[in-house]
Amino acid sequence: MKIWIEDLKRHVDQHVEIMGWVFNTRSSGKIKFLELRDGTGILNCVFWEPTCGKELFEKFEQLTQESSVKVGGKVTRHPKRDELELQVTHFEILQSAHQYPISPKEHGVEFLMEHRHLWLRSRRQTAILRIRHELIKAISDFFDGRGFIRTDAPIFTPNACEGTTNLFETQYFDEKMYLSQSGQLYMEATAAALGKVYCFGPTFRAEKSKTRRHLIEFWMVEPEVAFHDMYDNMELAEQLVEYIVQRILTNRKEELRVLERDVTKLETVKAPFPRLHYREACDIIKRENPQFKVGDDFGAPDETIISSQFDRPVFVHHYPAAVKAFYMKEDPKDPGFVMGSDLLAPEGYGEIIGGGQREDNLEILERKIREHELNPEHFKWYTDLRRYGSFPHSGFGLGIERTLAWICGLPHVRETIPFPRLYGRSYP
Amino acid sequence: MKIWIEDLKRHVDQHVEIMGWVFNTRSSGKIKFLELRDGTGILNCVFWEPTCGKELFEKFEQLTQESSVKVGGKVTRHPKRDELELQVTHFEILQSAHQYPISPKEHGVEFLMEHRHLWLRSRRQTAILRIRHELIKAISDFFDGRGFIRTDAPIFTPNACEGTTNLFETQYFDEKMYLSQSGQLYMEATAAALGKVYCFGPTFRAEKSKTRRHLIEFWMVEPEVAFHDMYDNMELAEQLVEYIVQRILTNRKEELRVLERDVTKLETVKAPFPRLHYREACDIIKRENPQFKVGDDFGAPDETIISSQFDRPVFVHHYPAAVKAFYMKEDPKDPGFVMGSDLLAPEGYGEIIGGGQREDNLEILERKIREHELNPEHFKWYTDLRRYGSFPHSGFGLGIERTLAWICGLPHVRETIPFPRLYGRSYP
Repeated sequence: MKIWIEDLKRHVDQHVEIMGWVFNTRSSGKIKFLELRDGTGILNCVFWEPTCGKELFEKFEQLTQESSVKVGGKVTRHPKRDELELQVTHFEILQSAHQYPISPKEHGVEFLMEHRHLWLRSRRQTAILRIRHELIKAISDFFDGRGFIRTDAPIFTPNACEGTTNLFETQYFDEKMYLSQSGQLYMEATAAALGKVYCFGPTFRAEKSKTRRHLIEFWMVEPEVAFHDMYDNMELAEQLVEYIVQRILTNRKEELRVLERDVTKLETVKAPFPRLHYREACDIIKRENPQFKVGDDFGAPDETIISSQFDRPVFVHHYPAAVKAFYMKEDPKDPGFVMGSDLLAPEGYGEIIGGGQREDNLEILERKIREHELNPEHFKWYTDLRRYGSFPHSGFGLGIERTLAWICGLPHVRETIPFPRLYGRSYP
Repeated sequence: MKIWIEDLKRHVDQHVEIMGWVFNTRSSGKIKFLELRDGTGILNCVFWEPTCGKELFEKFEQLTQESSVKVGGKVTRHPKRDELELQVTHFEILQSAHQYPISPKEHGVEFLMEHRHLWLRSRRQTAILRIRHELIKAISDFFDGRGFIRTDAPIFTPNACEGTTNLFETQYFDEKMYLSQSGQLYMEATAAALGKVYCFGPTFRAEKSKTRRHLIEFWMVEPEVAFHDMYDNMELAEQLVEYIVQRILTNRKEELRVLERDVTKLETVKAPFPRLHYREACDIIKRENPQFKVGDDFGAPDETIISSQFDRPVFVHHYPAAVKAFYMKEDPKDPGFVMGSDLLAPEGYGEIIGGGQREDNLEILERKIREHELNPEHFKWYTDLRRYGSFPHSGFGLGIERTLAWICGLPHVRETIPFPRLYGRSYP
């Protein structure tokens, strides 16, 4: 019976067949061990001449790293450790791998990135991908459980949401179109149809920069809620972040252990999160960076100064309108500042959420579109949302890869996505 | 207390506040009714002068379609029907909508598409979007419950998976890149890392055709399983399709009723599905279309001829190698035919799944790449999967929008996605 390694515990004392790849081999004279990997787990396969026979015992020597094999035998409990093993009685090499490029020795990052399609097979990379899977599932469970409807935004957009720089352009038959940088504007339309909505998909920024925080192609979840103000929005964001972190801590202990993640840094991630007005945040920054000019946006080092003060993520709200996007609502009680907030992750991972309340006044919005030199024609549908039943509403975007880098404690976002697209890296 | 209409049943006999939009109004002299829509449901709000007062009773007349309002009152049970109502005691107009473009009268398709951002608010469109949401959730629950790991494929790809025509090209800094038509090749790499994987995301085909089955930008789920052959693959596909259809029948009865879907056509969708060899399928087609040439791919009318014979989806397997993609494995027992299958939906909806077993022999695959005039440099990583532990594996792609059009019984795919991208349609 062909089974997966993850299902082994249901087959103790039975004869089973497993297909997979040679992860490692070792030998101690009379007994030989094959560490078999099938993608769902790693299994110790025991070759002992009296049970497997002389021929197989010798054939073991042909096993090379990452060769594909079919192994049969009896599932037994390890005499001492809480582990299952396979007592091999037959095996077959499906295809012999010769000189697998990634050996157990150290390799440089460029070499590993060039071999990303194989690097993904390592214990560390599969652990990250499993946590990524859990993160995505946790996010959809969070929103679906609260009655949100997923309404995917288009990738081809005639309008530039976050400004006209850093856009990828493509020829869409007879016209020029851009690849989406955010689904937010579209979520504002679907929020008016369905109340509580989100989209989840890839977004694109053509940034010519090589930093450990940026990908060219990254995934975002963007919820939008009708009749939520900026404070409801922060509450939703902190509930989401608490939920995903605590769920990964519960369900992905083993993977976090593989990554040697200090989980005490995640255990404290419980709502409510501290909230700083932009001005309070500036005071903190100026203590360590006297050059910082109040009114400016924060640089990465400034964000780190703020987040290092706290043991959980921290909101900064009421940024100056001048440094934020055209759609952000200015606070009538705090002129010049917007009703938006960013959430900064601890340990120097920077902004993982940006969001806030949207401008719902037609005249102000139309003026902002002109001031930002955007084409009003492209935004006709967007301003319609203020013509026909305008409503207070808020939402945010959470970047999957940066959030995952933080949760996993990775030094660079490049390992957080199966096939990263970076400035200067588009293969494989 | 501000609540959503979907939560009303927990607040019977309480005073609540609801924000939403005017869906409809009607008046019968002494009593006036506001049908209020908040995205999560529609609620009948009762204006009766003795409870709401003269002023509100008269202000009711100012309500116009899609104006945004805040309404307060007591939740009561309808005296005769199994329904909840709101006995209004206060209300406020947030923003008055004037001449909402979509009136209850009939509109042409082009007009509705131009106002898609507002059209989405209709009872029919929200029903479709809710079923879309359920479909996406059912798909991920199906795979996650079976131990699959979601590994998203990149959108920017240097290689052309389904041939070089119909590709969207974009400038990726100093090089040319294409927008992905399928994540399959990448899933073959992650299947070797994690055994059972899938991706879910947008894909792009630059087809200059206006048909009721095609979108320029559409979503696909693409599972790939290590050590699955073409028959395991068909079994997985039919289990998935049975699961999603039966789950939507169970959870989205009300939405299917709004769409006036004949659900008896869906109740029969139970595995196993009939399986036809390409040659058997040709025999069926030739009875009704004598012009059909054996060896050709099927056209849409041919697919309809086949699917109309059955009360559930039908597989056609072993297509001629000449009409299928380079990566499909030719059947050694049936030369000239591939170990792949398409799944045709009933009622003339055409192919909703395409997939099969992949070529796992390095020499054959390299020859196919040359024969298809693809650049071997771009496929170096892909052929590596056959160099280092090649393994039998299979997978398929299911198109979300076409599947949804079938389940909902829609005449055209344009209503199956919030913001459709069609040839000649890129706004809003």
